[in-house]
Amino acid sequence: MCLRTRWRRCSRRCRRGSWLWTGRASEPGRPRRGWKEAHMATIGFIGLGHMGLPMARNLLKAGHVVQGFDLSTAAVNALATAGGVPAGSIAKVVADADIVVTMLPEGRHVRTVYLDQGGVFLSAPTSALLVDCSTIDVETARTVNAAAAARGFTMVDAPVSGGVAGAEAGTLTFMVGGTEAAFARAEPILAAMGKAVIHAGPAGNGQAAKICNNMMLGIQMISVCEAMALAMKLGLAPEKLFEISSRSSGQCWSLTSYCPVPGPVPTSPANRGYEPGFATAMMLKDLRLAQAAAQGVAASTPLGAEAYQLYNLFAASGNEGLDFSAIIKMMIGSAA
Amino acid sequence: MCLRTRWRRCSRRCRRGSWLWTGRASEPGRPRRGWKEAHMATIGFIGLGHMGLPMARNLLKAGHVVQGFDLSTAAVNALATAGGVPAGSIAKVVADADIVVTMLPEGRHVRTVYLDQGGVFLSAPTSALLVDCSTIDVETARTVNAAAAARGFTMVDAPVSGGVAGAEAGTLTFMVGGTEAAFARAEPILAAMGKAVIHAGPAGNGQAAKICNNMMLGIQMISVCEAMALAMKLGLAPEKLFEISSRSSGQCWSLTSYCPVPGPVPTSPANRGYEPGFATAMMLKDLRLAQAAAQGVAASTPLGAEAYQLYNLFAASGNEGLDFSAIIKMMIGSAA
Repeated sequence: MCLRTRWRRCSRRCRRGSWLWTGRASEPGRPRRGWKEAHMATIGFIGLGHMGLPMARNLLKAGHVVQGFDLSTAAVNALATAGGVPAGSIAKVVADADIVVTMLPEGRHVRTVYLDQGGVFLSAPTSALLVDCSTIDVETARTVNAAAAARGFTMVDAPVSGGVAGAEAGTLTFMVGGTEAAFARAEPILAAMGKAVIHAGPAGNGQAAKICNNMMLGIQMISVCEAMALAMKLGLAPEKLFEISSRSSGQCWSLTSYCPVPGPVPTSPANRGYEPGFATAMMLKDLRLAQAAAQGVAASTPLGAEAYQLYNLFAASGNEGLDFSAIIKMMIGSAA
Repeated sequence: MCLRTRWRRCSRRCRRGSWLWTGRASEPGRPRRGWKEAHMATIGFIGLGHMGLPMARNLLKAGHVVQGFDLSTAAVNALATAGGVPAGSIAKVVADADIVVTMLPEGRHVRTVYLDQGGVFLSAPTSALLVDCSTIDVETARTVNAAAAARGFTMVDAPVSGGVAGAEAGTLTFMVGGTEAAFARAEPILAAMGKAVIHAGPAGNGQAAKICNNMMLGIQMISVCEAMALAMKLGLAPEKLFEISSRSSGQCWSLTSYCPVPGPVPTSPANRGYEPGFATAMMLKDLRLAQAAAQGVAASTPLGAEAYQLYNLFAASGNEGLDFSAIIKMMIGSAA
């Protein structure tokens, strides 16, 4: 019998266009481990907020069975409307899952969801791949990963960048911490929700990469805002400073892709009243995580610490919901 | 008579390949003002240091007559060796100059050279174009420019970026402050010493553009150093953070063109023991100028102020001569 006849093109709106094995797993020529995870896995998705819901929708679009749980019934219903399966508890949503994906606000939620009675570790089959996409502190990520390994689970931390727009468009970037084998299992499922999946090293390194990047981002955004505000007061047009520095040594993403003054970069939030984008509250969270991590390993981050304080001041003035580039208002002196 | 016969190709090793007018200035068809300045001007060059000397050499290469003055006789002799004309005083070097170029350490030197008895204003013909390439405080630049205008001179401030290597290769970037007419006169002579000549606006705006850019640069370099040091302590390889952030929102020139850790950017000073490049002392000077400017116009620059303090600490530990990216040593904790 020609073994090739047991292969067919994935037809479940799969964006990868790969071949699926339709024969029995024991037959010669069967695909390598991971084929089901890439194409028709049963996924238990916990945390259907602004990020989680569109991510879960993209898993549905890729042809997976997605069971969803959230403390908000409205969120669970929204998933059901998109074709997902509503579940009433963590235990039920993970009971028969091939993969568990979590997208939660903070480390304490991740601990609760994974470690507590009725949580993932006590309810999911140990064959399940555990993928935590939350942005949390490095220490919790490593603690929970170690606890997972001790129970026989494979787990990765896979925080994202790209925001709600990236979650909806399926263009997120995932920074993944875990073993090589865990990364290999997680990559296809993450690829269904994003455009880039990067292995940053062992457990916790996904979180480390994200907070190191976003600490740079927060500092660099303030550097641009200070320079723009100074330029204006010196009688140098912001557009002129943009023109000069965008091709000089002051060039950075915050200037050339996300300019905090209206005009030079038409797509930047400055052109729509600083509607996020990436909210000040989220930047503040990442800077706080960076400070916690730095204190944990006694790293010196003087500008990271100052950037945290500045974003805290800005957020405390009622600007939490504005895009993080709006901090230029504080530098210019027209903030609320 | 065919007026075209009075034109000939510039043959004085001119890099612009333009046509020169060989007839009398009063004849019809004579070139517009500025032709001599572009091709065979007599230039009085004051300040033949690490930057000034190679800049003056490039003016010689472009076919100009360059008369030089410096407090150091060795520097004047070096210019003479390259084909320049040594002069014993400021008065002598500018007496018959079409253009005066100054490249001096600080604002007080600029005031002295231009304003004092025996200085440029009292010794140069008022037809001379005055070009100050020094990096100095905005206020002095504007004061001296106004004094020049009051005496009938045309003057621009034209600080540079690109360092000694750029001065030698003739690839500097000039940020020019002055009137449109002054910029038009200065542009061809600056083009003989650089690859980019940018008009930043009225007098002093060249200085404003430079310090705003370099304040961003100083802050951004520290942001990269802090993030790299934090990454290392968290067990995330610097090369991995480079890979992730160079295509993410933490991207900046300090990371992707001048990486402060050895390896990712082979041309960066980190790969040659932090030999400058752009010395810590020069970055410290620019951050100090930025602080002075900010205080003068009551601009808020919290990270600029902190960056100045950090570079001051680093320089005070005997690191003035190292490249400014060497401040990563302080962040990692292995500085002297």
